[in-house]
Amino acid sequence: MRMVDIIEKKRDGMELSTEEIQFFINGYTNGDIPDYQASALMMAIYFQGMNERERTDLTMAMVDSGDKVDLSKIDGIKVDKHSTGGVGDTTTLVLGPLVASVGVPVAKMSGRGLGHTGGTIDKLESISGFHVEISNDEFIRLVNENKMAVVGQSGNLTPADKKLYALRDVTATVPSIPLIASSIMSKKIAAGADCIVLDVKTGSGAFMKTLEEARELAQAMVRIGNRIGRNTIAIISDMNQPLGLAIGNALEVKEAIDTLKGEGPKDLTELCLSLGSQMVYLAKKADSIEEARNMLIESIRSGRALEKFKTFITSQGGDASVVDHPEKLPQAKYRFDLTAEEDGWIAAMDAEKIGVAAMLLGAGRATKESFIDLSVGIVLRKKIGDKVTKGESILTIHSNREKIDDVKQLLKESIIQSKEKIEPVKLIHDIINE
Amino acid sequence: MRMVDIIEKKRDGMELSTEEIQFFINGYTNGDIPDYQASALMMAIYFQGMNERERTDLTMAMVDSGDKVDLSKIDGIKVDKHSTGGVGDTTTLVLGPLVASVGVPVAKMSGRGLGHTGGTIDKLESISGFHVEISNDEFIRLVNENKMAVVGQSGNLTPADKKLYALRDVTATVPSIPLIASSIMSKKIAAGADCIVLDVKTGSGAFMKTLEEARELAQAMVRIGNRIGRNTIAIISDMNQPLGLAIGNALEVKEAIDTLKGEGPKDLTELCLSLGSQMVYLAKKADSIEEARNMLIESIRSGRALEKFKTFITSQGGDASVVDHPEKLPQAKYRFDLTAEEDGWIAAMDAEKIGVAAMLLGAGRATKESFIDLSVGIVLRKKIGDKVTKGESILTIHSNREKIDDVKQLLKESIIQSKEKIEPVKLIHDIINE
Repeated sequence: MRMVDIIEKKRDGMELSTEEIQFFINGYTNGDIPDYQASALMMAIYFQGMNERERTDLTMAMVDSGDKVDLSKIDGIKVDKHSTGGVGDTTTLVLGPLVASVGVPVAKMSGRGLGHTGGTIDKLESISGFHVEISNDEFIRLVNENKMAVVGQSGNLTPADKKLYALRDVTATVPSIPLIASSIMSKKIAAGADCIVLDVKTGSGAFMKTLEEARELAQAMVRIGNRIGRNTIAIISDMNQPLGLAIGNALEVKEAIDTLKGEGPKDLTELCLSLGSQMVYLAKKADSIEEARNMLIESIRSGRALEKFKTFITSQGGDASVVDHPEKLPQAKYRFDLTAEEDGWIAAMDAEKIGVAAMLLGAGRATKESFIDLSVGIVLRKKIGDKVTKGESILTIHSNREKIDDVKQLLKESIIQSKEKIEPVKLIHDIINE
Repeated sequence: MRMVDIIEKKRDGMELSTEEIQFFINGYTNGDIPDYQASALMMAIYFQGMNERERTDLTMAMVDSGDKVDLSKIDGIKVDKHSTGGVGDTTTLVLGPLVASVGVPVAKMSGRGLGHTGGTIDKLESISGFHVEISNDEFIRLVNENKMAVVGQSGNLTPADKKLYALRDVTATVPSIPLIASSIMSKKIAAGADCIVLDVKTGSGAFMKTLEEARELAQAMVRIGNRIGRNTIAIISDMNQPLGLAIGNALEVKEAIDTLKGEGPKDLTELCLSLGSQMVYLAKKADSIEEARNMLIESIRSGRALEKFKTFITSQGGDASVVDHPEKLPQAKYRFDLTAEEDGWIAAMDAEKIGVAAMLLGAGRATKESFIDLSVGIVLRKKIGDKVTKGESILTIHSNREKIDDVKQLLKESIIQSKEKIEPVKLIHDIINE
């Protein structure tokens, strides 16, 4: 088998065989196939696509390129959730304790990553004492005992995907549905979950700008999952503005606590209930989505969800008193309000730009070496469709530096007001299960 | 400027600016831009194409990537000819002396190259004493004196093209009209000619299988040439069977001598007259194509063309007596005939396979290190449309090994007979001058 023939075949729009896909991934992972052939193939796939069978084979070849997490010692059906990025996405922090509180095992492996804010682990580390340096046995014991634990990613999961993604990033071959779908799914599958719930974002602040693209990506991933026997469903949710109100690490932890108390932002609460009820249903803890949803609402109402969060924090060394005393979380030195210059309605928010503003404050990492300031960020007071009057605060900036003209300028540009009444945006656009 | 943005632009079907094309070629030549980005761009160009302006810019950027040959010290208008490959193509050997004999300066820079037979220099070296190791000054003096000289390629011409071609070869990005056209034209332009006559082959034995593709390539090259002020025309000639009768080095030299004597194969003679009259016309040695053609016919008839060949051979140290005594050329030990198994007409010839058979005999190089046997090859006795009777020779194999079952088998497979009468194929399909 020769790589050049495989590239030519795909270039000419033909289907690659399972063996050809494995040959490519194995050869590329071990260095036999050079980057320049891989990038030519990626570009050919960008133009010619891949059918369901090829996407599934690519996913599995990437899964097989490295270690696989074994969650078999954890009781019950393990359901993992994945969001395709976005700004101010606090769902993971809320969903974990929420579904764990009704008996779904949450064995979360998380990274730090780059982005507007830190990863889930960074956020949790704003709770004093909390740590993820636990052994694999301890991790499994904690999930079996408490139904929830979070550990840092270890092992060499999907090295092929890591290498390919780095290559795609510099060769303009990132935005390809088959390549995005198999990249995401390979990571989820290698991480060992039995079922997968996907939160595919769409809108100006998401990678998939249109609903049509988001649907296509969601369907691609759901079909890969189902073809290999991992029950998968996707919710398509709106990212025309940040989700919830908080963007920042400690700020999002506080928002998660509020939401688990039943006092969170409406959109975040709704998305968590939607994603959560799918997770509970797939984990067979409820016979219908509706039943699952009612269980979650009851869990919040009764305080069981919040209680679960406390148990989880304590089990990993954290100070659970922050739940009742969120003022113990890291606080920024300064607060500044961005106020409305005239009466009207919020018409649009550039979530991407708001995210960049948070990063400029220090909430996220631009490079792997960047230092994260857990206390800083932005709290929105208004969202699309909300009425504002002149001088009213649209958002509050939490900063540790006094001069933040750059941040203010960016935020000003990212919010558009209208004199006409604007309708709120729809949150859940679609649910894809086949 | 970032290479990834240039790739993305082309991927999305947009036009690259002159600066972007120069940035890419300069960066790729000096190693700043890695192979993996270049191959992604090549694949994007394969799918999205390039317009005339981009093709011309790419050509000139590759010309500017290395040395340029200065032919200004040669009197008159220098016309270069290029054939897009094919099997048994003896035109260069014939055309040089032919057009030189009517006063067109032929300053030929040639290589050895890989292929079914050797390059022009290899072929000429089958003449005892002939050599191309002459200085640049000597080369120019000879052309001014005799109107013809051949020298080995020196200097670092179009390094960008060499590097890119090697990359395209292993990334399935060779068959792209803009890339082929600019690769060929950059070499011709760097080689210093004022005018260029292109012989674009079409048919089963050519790279361009269909007339439509050949026309597209011819037009692409003609337009690049004309845009940068080098008068360029292209003839589209047939390569559904080998051109002429001989395939092999010394065998082609003999065929060239025959043709210069007016005793050559009809198709080779006709193509040389067609290409030659365009060259003579572009060199302003005739006022019309017809006048040019008549000059060439007269030059063959009068013996001046043959005389020019002798002068040329002598001037570069060769034994010109081979012209009158072709038996002095290297001779193979054995001759074998392939005979017809039944009566009929020759319906098809696989020129590519016949070329491979010649290479198996030792006539060509598979790798740069291969040894070439100048004496071996194949001489066709029949061509498409010819009648054959059972037992009659279709071709003669000139070999230095006695067991040639592999070659015979390949040749048998490459010739298809029909019981129905078959028409000869058309030789000149089109002439493209704009």
